[in-house]
Amino acid sequence: MDKEFYLSVYRHSLAHVLAKAVIELYGPETQYAIGPQIADGFYYDFRLPVSVKEEDFPKIEAKMKEILKRREPWTRLEVSRAEALELFKGQKYKTELIQDLPEDEVITIYRTGDDFVDLCRGPHIDNSQELMNAAFEIRAVSGAYWRGDEHNDALQRIYVWAFPTRDELKAHKALIKEAMERDHKKLGPQLDLFMMDPSAPGMPYWLPRGWKMYNALLSFWRGLHEQHGYQEISGPVLSKKELWVTSGHWDHYMDGMFILPGETIDSPDTMALKPMNCPNAIKVFMNKGRSYRDLPFRINQVDVIHRKEKSGELNGLFRVQEFHQDDAHILVTEEQIAGEIKDIMSIATEIYNTFGLTYSAELSTRPDNYMGDIEVWNQAEEDLRNILLEVYGEGNFEINEGDGAFYGPKIDLKMKDALGREWQMGTIQLDFQLPLNFDMKYTASDGTQKRPVMIHRAILGSFERFIGIAIEHFKAAFPFWMNPYQVAVVPIRTEHNDYARKVADALKEAGIRVEADYADKNMNEKIKAFKTLKDPYILVLGDKEQQDNTVSVTIRGCKEQLHGVPLETFVAMCKKMNATRCLDLMTAAE
Amino acid sequence: MDKEFYLSVYRHSLAHVLAKAVIELYGPETQYAIGPQIADGFYYDFRLPVSVKEEDFPKIEAKMKEILKRREPWTRLEVSRAEALELFKGQKYKTELIQDLPEDEVITIYRTGDDFVDLCRGPHIDNSQELMNAAFEIRAVSGAYWRGDEHNDALQRIYVWAFPTRDELKAHKALIKEAMERDHKKLGPQLDLFMMDPSAPGMPYWLPRGWKMYNALLSFWRGLHEQHGYQEISGPVLSKKELWVTSGHWDHYMDGMFILPGETIDSPDTMALKPMNCPNAIKVFMNKGRSYRDLPFRINQVDVIHRKEKSGELNGLFRVQEFHQDDAHILVTEEQIAGEIKDIMSIATEIYNTFGLTYSAELSTRPDNYMGDIEVWNQAEEDLRNILLEVYGEGNFEINEGDGAFYGPKIDLKMKDALGREWQMGTIQLDFQLPLNFDMKYTASDGTQKRPVMIHRAILGSFERFIGIAIEHFKAAFPFWMNPYQVAVVPIRTEHNDYARKVADALKEAGIRVEADYADKNMNEKIKAFKTLKDPYILVLGDKEQQDNTVSVTIRGCKEQLHGVPLETFVAMCKKMNATRCLDLMTAAE
Repeated sequence: MDKEFYLSVYRHSLAHVLAKAVIELYGPETQYAIGPQIADGFYYDFRLPVSVKEEDFPKIEAKMKEILKRREPWTRLEVSRAEALELFKGQKYKTELIQDLPEDEVITIYRTGDDFVDLCRGPHIDNSQELMNAAFEIRAVSGAYWRGDEHNDALQRIYVWAFPTRDELKAHKALIKEAMERDHKKLGPQLDLFMMDPSAPGMPYWLPRGWKMYNALLSFWRGLHEQHGYQEISGPVLSKKELWVTSGHWDHYMDGMFILPGETIDSPDTMALKPMNCPNAIKVFMNKGRSYRDLPFRINQVDVIHRKEKSGELNGLFRVQEFHQDDAHILVTEEQIAGEIKDIMSIATEIYNTFGLTYSAELSTRPDNYMGDIEVWNQAEEDLRNILLEVYGEGNFEINEGDGAFYGPKIDLKMKDALGREWQMGTIQLDFQLPLNFDMKYTASDGTQKRPVMIHRAILGSFERFIGIAIEHFKAAFPFWMNPYQVAVVPIRTEHNDYARKVADALKEAGIRVEADYADKNMNEKIKAFKTLKDPYILVLGDKEQQDNTVSVTIRGCKEQLHGVPLETFVAMCKKMNATRCLDLMTAAE
Repeated sequence: MDKEFYLSVYRHSLAHVLAKAVIELYGPETQYAIGPQIADGFYYDFRLPVSVKEEDFPKIEAKMKEILKRREPWTRLEVSRAEALELFKGQKYKTELIQDLPEDEVITIYRTGDDFVDLCRGPHIDNSQELMNAAFEIRAVSGAYWRGDEHNDALQRIYVWAFPTRDELKAHKALIKEAMERDHKKLGPQLDLFMMDPSAPGMPYWLPRGWKMYNALLSFWRGLHEQHGYQEISGPVLSKKELWVTSGHWDHYMDGMFILPGETIDSPDTMALKPMNCPNAIKVFMNKGRSYRDLPFRINQVDVIHRKEKSGELNGLFRVQEFHQDDAHILVTEEQIAGEIKDIMSIATEIYNTFGLTYSAELSTRPDNYMGDIEVWNQAEEDLRNILLEVYGEGNFEINEGDGAFYGPKIDLKMKDALGREWQMGTIQLDFQLPLNFDMKYTASDGTQKRPVMIHRAILGSFERFIGIAIEHFKAAFPFWMNPYQVAVVPIRTEHNDYARKVADALKEAGIRVEADYADKNMNEKIKAFKTLKDPYILVLGDKEQQDNTVSVTIRGCKEQLHGVPLETFVAMCKKMNATRCLDLMTAAE
């Protein structure tokens, strides 16, 4: 048995044990629904006469262990639909599940001991004994709906961590603890980066410090795109239905859109908030007659976009309804595809490297329902494959055959964060469809009218989500160039305020984001506050510094202070740190 | 008779002459509606069997002159309602107007000659002779609806310029010509600043050049506010109805809001696009317990906001439905009002001076339906008055007694553009109401909980509208610091491209926005293109410049070129121009 498969059998079996334990504890009134495996264990949904609370977890765990100690045999039974219905009489959800099966299907049932049966395809273990060394722990209980539909019965979902060994469980719990300490939903508001308000679900408020960081990131992103020949535009947030009908969003993405109905939803005065920026770039391209000399036509754009999500799926900055993609659209000739994708890959490399992130790529190719010219598809896919070969080398990228969109192949870029978690970040998507929908044209060098190919791409994904990931990856100790404030200034006593202001001004003059506390209070209190906010450098300024025109520097994450650093040297160092986007505060200080 | 009054009599009378002329030309089927005075003349609305076209204007003007030459007497008649209805039998609109008058009202009628009557309060001239020297000219014809309601009859509106003397008409036409040449709706798309698309009415697309300028303006505005202790936030564009109910917008501003109804418009899941930013600043203030130490709490914000306008009232960047205010909200104690207003006035002065704009102020004071404490009102109004006295001097600002909002007094700032047109720009509005609606509090120095006062303020009004005004004021020849590109680089031949790139890089390094044309084409063609785009400095680079490491500079608006300017000197000059926001390209070049 391979490990993955063994793990699934093991977790499925434990789920039966949980259900049996819950029934024994809460009585035969217990209605048990389903209990699937999840990434770190499993859950089981129940309808119970009482609310399960955290203090009940040990009791349930003890009952599960007691059941395991009984070393009961597990039996697989094949029954008819009628027999199954009889076996689960009184069990509402199981009955429903059975009724949904084809009438003549043979149904498998697993029996644990004499008194417990569960509906299950299996396979399972043979005897409870096999689970004697199981490493499991009830993690949480939460509300759920039967079949995930809020119109159905409300159930209680018991989550359980489950691993083959105690070491694996321990390692997983340590990871969870670390992730919780890094949780951007906790750190964000704590460090005055962002907040959420119930009046705007999934629509972040950027607090002053977070907004400074956001703009530092935006400014880096803008500079890089300008270097690569992009031109930035900004387009309307709201547009009439006709635009979304032409773009195809009305037919294919309506459920994700926030819509402002006119007289009726079908009226021409119906409008929608943009879920994507593509039509804006198209309108700007089509604003003038374009020729091959205008291509590649590179447009970048960071307007606010809106996409509807189910309220249960909103998750801090990771899953929002209002956000800003680091978006770009490029119109190219077919011959320019390869060169342009290569340039985009080099932008991606530069961005990810700036954060010290490792990333990998996946290519999704032509699906069966593709549109357009197969020759163009073949050439484009070959181009993409060759670029990935060149950048990553043979075998170092994945290919998802047939997984591309019907309108073009794409490359997805994924990165791993400090906890080893993988995140889908960038997408580079070829599109043969939208230029057709909007009847886009350019005059080729031979004077004929040709249709350009469109490339959609984002590297960070969205600023919101990327900042959420960055908070967790860096544990809010951001790189110098990106931190909300880069230097904090602490005059030891108020008589040092003048010198402190001089230092702050010198830094501001050099484009460094500085904050200072000139209040008449204890120096250590000030330092502590700035440390909590994770400012990279804290300058402590007293008689000696004032006299020598120097600064004493406390470096984030280091015990020792640097003393007697000439002010000019420190300013020059900060400028250099900004220019090079250095990740290491110590290297720079040396 | 004072001049204003004479002008109105004169224009009203000419309107009767126009109506009479139209009836004589187009026959008795002509239905005439209303003909009021407007700023530069008058218009009259007609329902006619044919469409009036521009080529018909001379014919109508000639007929008007012919009528004037008849020197017919004008007679004022007082008639009963029944008599009036008889007189205007067959005239649908006049009949409606008469029927709307109180039954027993004496109705005045003016008769011109024997065959024409019009319903009018008067007064009018006595004899057509008085209009013999009238300076008038038909300006335009456009569509209109009876009573401005699109459900009513479609009418034709004939606009006429009318002034007491030919010189005044001539001067006015010259001004109109100048304004048309400066029309931002024409210059904006021409210079690639912005465009409009029918799919997003009143919602500008910012093209690359315009967006560069927009961001230069934003960056100036941001830096200034940071200096004045403001903290920038960004808040959700969309929020639930509950927020707008609390803020009062739901009751008082619903018609101006873009609403996304939930199950019904009254459902709690109904949302609306924000028409104002104030609730965001309030939520951020209330995010933490605040004390007197946090006040003044200065929040600035430039998020996109949406306000519904009637489609007929949309007007380029002047009247839009989607825009960004240069917004700020400040929470202060009552004692801080005066100091804070003074600081805002100093920001306003700095901003307006940067553009060389002259401005004036108006104070609007307590209306009868005021809310809050009269003592607080009195003190606040005295504070505002004293500040205006100090800044402008006695008699140099207007007071609109009783014209304040019910929730607080305000100062409006108006500016005059290069054509002498006045624009409402900034508003500084005290607000005693919103802090109450949201139950905002701070801990005072004596430990008690107090309610802050809110100040709303904008200086430019909105970025969109201000840029519209700036395009017309500067005729798109913007100040150096603000121009989309600041320097254009023209290598004389392609062998000068390397040196041109060196020059461009040196300028970019210094933070100057540079564009260059390295194509293999005629130098004069390149220079002409950059001149059309109104780049402030165009550098022409050939053998001599390359050899001497100098630049030759063509200065926008000047005939002569500067030759042999050392590159370093030119870069330093540009840096200084940016830093000082100098308005004069020549002064800097000397």
